Amino acid sequence: MNKHISEQFDEELQITRNLLMEMGGLVEQQIQNACASLIGQDEERARRVMELEKRVNQLELELDDQCIQIIARRQPAASDLRMMISVLRAVTDLERIGDESERIAKMALAVSHLEYPRDHYADVRAMNEQVAAMVSGALDAFARTDVATAESIIRADEAVDNAYRDILKRLIADMQQQPAAIELSLNITWAARALERIGDHAKNIAEYVVYLVRGEDVRHPKANKG
Amino acid sequence: MNKHISEQFDEELQITRNLLMEMGGLVEQQIQNACASLIGQDEERARRVMELEKRVNQLELELDDQCIQIIARRQPAASDLRMMISVLRAVTDLERIGDESERIAKMALAVSHLEYPRDHYADVRAMNEQVAAMVSGALDAFARTDVATAESIIRADEAVDNAYRDILKRLIADMQQQPAAIELSLNITWAARALERIGDHAKNIAEYVVYLVRGEDVRHPKANKG
Repeated sequence: MNKHISEQFDEELQITRNLLMEMGGLVEQQIQNACASLIGQDEERARRVMELEKRVNQLELELDDQCIQIIARRQPAASDLRMMISVLRAVTDLERIGDESERIAKMALAVSHLEYPRDHYADVRAMNEQVAAMVSGALDAFARTDVATAESIIRADEAVDNAYRDILKRLIADMQQQPAAIELSLNITWAARALERIGDHAKNIAEYVVYLVRGEDVRHPKANKG
Repeated sequence: MNKHISEQFDEELQITRNLLMEMGGLVEQQIQNACASLIGQDEERARRVMELEKRVNQLELELDDQCIQIIARRQPAASDLRMMISVLRAVTDLERIGDESERIAKMALAVSHLEYPRDHYADVRAMNEQVAAMVSGALDAFARTDVATAESIIRADEAVDNAYRDILKRLIADMQQQPAAIELSLNITWAARALERIGDHAKNIAEYVVYLVRGEDVRHPKANKG
């Protein structure tokens, strides 16, 4: 590639990455609104999640299209190609984080009329904070191709999985002791499950960063050695 | 591209698609073994799922690598490029179907010592059949780039989602009536949830086929129109 074309290509890459960050920002808003709508029984914020979803889906299509066009027209070398493929993959994970947020928001709407004890969602609130930090960190790591941050996000996912298992154990005990609270407990179970999945997607995005920078695939260390 | 290079490229494409079908076949075995291990309380079949997972993960890495190398070396035109991107995406969905199967298998191991009523897993069995047919159909549709089959798979996902909702309603009622059976009912809930997710992934693969052939994105019809 001559300098002129190479500069154009860099610019296109930058536009694509900016669009990815815009999508990431919207998805972060979805998570916050979804959890706030559940915890605060706030129907307005639940509906905000659905509105954001439209723009998130549009961005997914735009980004897909841009990446494929750039690859076809610019025919990038393997390292730039891996960047484009990583953007395509991150887009899919962001879109699915949006889907999980929408699930939480729908659940919030379904239970917004019920009366709950005030500290009922303490566990969801704690998990929400953990997971929001993971998504934010994964996006930062992607924007700055920062392996150290990415690796800390990958490690953080274990804490989220443990939090999820703890919530589940407690909720099963609750259900056994108070059969009347089963519907309530199941709602928290689903919300926690959705948050755990959002953590998984944040971890996926962090893994793309490590893969990009190190050129190695961290997804299946055992398969790599085999 | 001259004819010689074009033939080589076609051959590489074919090898990649064959590898994808091999991965698909292994994932189908994982689903069957996972459900059979849960329903039949068969620890041996649960362990078979974990063994298959190793090869599935290896195939994921191999396929990713092959696709990226082919794109970098062959610089395919937009339509062939979309095929390679679709293979990359299908690989991710297959790998996640494997993950869900592993979840079911782990659950099977956790509960294999408990005594259950004989018809306890009737719902799981029915959902297993629906979902296995979807995965098999999606792979066939991909292999033959058959839009009609792909569209029938996309429609079938709604039936699976409904089946999942019905199971859930019944299980909540069970838990309210028989608090002692909560752990049992939760296990079925998780298994049904994993199967519902497998249905989602099969639907994703079917959508790639429609997108490939029609050149349109069927994932967000509303966002497309907007």
